[in-house]
Amino acid sequence: MNIYDASVPVFTHFLRSLSVILKKAEAHCAARKIDPAVILGARLYPDMFALTRQVQIASDAAKGAGARLAGIAVPSWPDEEKSFDELQARIAKTIAFLASLKPEQFADAETREIALKAGGRDLKFSGAAYLDTWAKPNFFFHVTTAYAILRHNGIELGKPDFLAGGQ
Amino acid sequence: MNIYDASVPVFTHFLRSLSVILKKAEAHCAARKIDPAVILGARLYPDMFALTRQVQIASDAAKGAGARLAGIAVPSWPDEEKSFDELQARIAKTIAFLASLKPEQFADAETREIALKAGGRDLKFSGAAYLDTWAKPNFFFHVTTAYAILRHNGIELGKPDFLAGGQ
Repeated sequence: MNIYDASVPVFTHFLRSLSVILKKAEAHCAARKIDPAVILGARLYPDMFALTRQVQIASDAAKGAGARLAGIAVPSWPDEEKSFDELQARIAKTIAFLASLKPEQFADAETREIALKAGGRDLKFSGAAYLDTWAKPNFFFHVTTAYAILRHNGIELGKPDFLAGGQ
Repeated sequence: MNIYDASVPVFTHFLRSLSVILKKAEAHCAARKIDPAVILGARLYPDMFALTRQVQIASDAAKGAGARLAGIAVPSWPDEEKSFDELQARIAKTIAFLASLKPEQFADAETREIALKAGGRDLKFSGAAYLDTWAKPNFFFHVTTAYAILRHNGIELGKPDFLAGGQ
């Protein structure tokens, strides 16, 4: 195992799943004449993030991990998506960013120190611990919560949509 | 990175998080005089699994991955939990099973073929692909869905409960 294979292709696979899940949600809105804004703003509890924000954070988790493990600055993207099309573009941009990273950039990433701020705290990890106990769990948390919001709102999805990587 | 470090300690960490999350749910039930069975049977949509089943499947994903990557038979445990205490025991049993596995058993696991049946299909993976695109995503999917069910029912949890590994 190497940390490139454990990160870039995995994030890409599940971003593709997320893309398919959102396409099904958009089609559901069109078929039932549901205002897409209703679904994009849906949340499981008043103080949880809505669907759009779940997708943005999943994107952030993937690009943050890719950049930090490659040893480059994390790109900063505004969170301005307001439609399914714009969320699809955000996902595509995230996948393209990951595709721009070269395995060689990850050569010392397993042991390189990764420092970040979260919730006002300074966190430090080895690259491997960052990926396995922070970046990927966060990523899957938000992809799964997006899925859960959609299922809760009646969109017909199944586990294969989550697992299949858009295949 | 090696596949033992990317699997056993990661599953253990997030099983401990799941344990803490369920303890908070149980305390919430006691404080509000909610029948625990209501929360244990809660689900986000009629054809989704209830909380108890989410925990059982998270346990199955962890023990299945540990066993398959160690090259031993996957232990079969009945899904009979009916209380928070029994779910805690299931989680503890899963953690103990993972702790019984030795890193040496994972020596050839990255490239060893892992075959399993899912949804009536025969699936084959390398150990690394099995862990990264099947076992861990499934595990995080069910831990996160358990969290989402509880948040949706008003239990006060935060992302740190998910990330902290019981610390």
